[in-house]
Amino acid sequence: LPEATPAWVWAEELAGPGARVTLAEEDSRYVTRVCRARLGETLALTDGRGGVARGRLETIQPRAVIRIEALEHRESERQGVLLCGAAEGIRFDWAVEKLAELGVTRVRPIQCERARWDKAALRADRWRRLARAALLQSRGSFLLEVGAPEELADALAAEAAPALGVLADPEGRPTAGLAAPDSGTTVGIVGPAEGLTDSEKASIVARGFVAITLSGSRLRTETAAMAWAAWWAGGGTSQSRSKAESATS
Amino acid sequence: LPEATPAWVWAEELAGPGARVTLAEEDSRYVTRVCRARLGETLALTDGRGGVARGRLETIQPRAVIRIEALEHRESERQGVLLCGAAEGIRFDWAVEKLAELGVTRVRPIQCERARWDKAALRADRWRRLARAALLQSRGSFLLEVGAPEELADALAAEAAPALGVLADPEGRPTAGLAAPDSGTTVGIVGPAEGLTDSEKASIVARGFVAITLSGSRLRTETAAMAWAAWWAGGGTSQSRSKAESATS
Repeated sequence: LPEATPAWVWAEELAGPGARVTLAEEDSRYVTRVCRARLGETLALTDGRGGVARGRLETIQPRAVIRIEALEHRESERQGVLLCGAAEGIRFDWAVEKLAELGVTRVRPIQCERARWDKAALRADRWRRLARAALLQSRGSFLLEVGAPEELADALAAEAAPALGVLADPEGRPTAGLAAPDSGTTVGIVGPAEGLTDSEKASIVARGFVAITLSGSRLRTETAAMAWAAWWAGGGTSQSRSKAESATS
Repeated sequence: LPEATPAWVWAEELAGPGARVTLAEEDSRYVTRVCRARLGETLALTDGRGGVARGRLETIQPRAVIRIEALEHRESERQGVLLCGAAEGIRFDWAVEKLAELGVTRVRPIQCERARWDKAALRADRWRRLARAALLQSRGSFLLEVGAPEELADALAAEAAPALGVLADPEGRPTAGLAAPDSGTTVGIVGPAEGLTDSEKASIVARGFVAITLSGSRLRTETAAMAWAAWWAGGGTSQSRSKAESATS
């Protein structure tokens, strides 16, 4: 059913109906080798910034060229932002993939008193590739952004006044019965494996963050990041559901 | 603080106070090389079946021998059981690790109409090692059990009458506001990448399962498995919290 479920493809820049978009080399290969799209086939394109287009594949070589038939700009109605302490080794790789699949907006790696991100663990290029692949896989339109490491205080200042701020803490309140807001920005904080210090926790709580506990068991940093993302994603389901209902009624 | 937070170690069999437990070769190595435990040091041991002991390291070579000082048998007050369709390639490996960290009780790989578990993707030995490492990491006392693949109908029959059964389904009800039960068995079902057929879904719903949507975006099988586990784990936090409160009050 190629027409019913067109391949979901990355385009750096989109354009309006009638225009032609030439894909980058890597994305052209993805169209021909992974999606095995044929000339004349319909494709869906996203720029990862809310732009989604539909078009037909006109040329394959040397690059894929798609003639745009429809273009829409989606608004992001809810944002999930995670401030995350250093994970061990390359363990954060798969968290990036999973956070992107779950639709998280932004990750800010934070430098904490007890642990700093190791240069080897910061793999910006790899993370961007993983996030992009996950975006296409989940047919999303907003690319997960992973920032450069920054101090906790700076990250907190940059994410001032969220709709809700939560701190993952084994002593926190249960997440059962606490839904993530279905609009606006929800900010989560997950400490490094070594934990946050009392003064770091105090500075977070002083900004109105609520301490929540994600699980009865002790979680690794990347597992807590993922559990937070799942909790956040669950908060958006009531909205998706009501949209789906209104679309079919 | 070796005494305050003793290393958490695997023992195939535990025994009562005064008895000596000799660890297996692999677990002995873990004690000396990973935990770097010294003679006379206190260790915590679990058999992964609810048994937790405290003891002192008496001998290191050729195997670690621990003299038990205290033994308790924990009851599992809530169980999380996942029936999971085939994941792609070896992608289920990390789901096993994360499900174990989140405290899930059992995974039943299910054979579905549109997808069957590939032999290569079934890595029982590796999964057991991953689950055990995750158990020790999270200082848990119940080892995640991963069964052999079975037909959906057989798995459903084996998990009859759960406290709550849920089916991950993009058309389901939101998880926001639906807490996983804080006692008894919660059964979740996640379909394979190819999806469940309508008749499979009907057979599941006929057994009283509630369709729930875990995220507004399309998730891979292993990501949905993990999001389900995070939702389930969140349902136990109110219980952990009230226990922690009564312990300190």
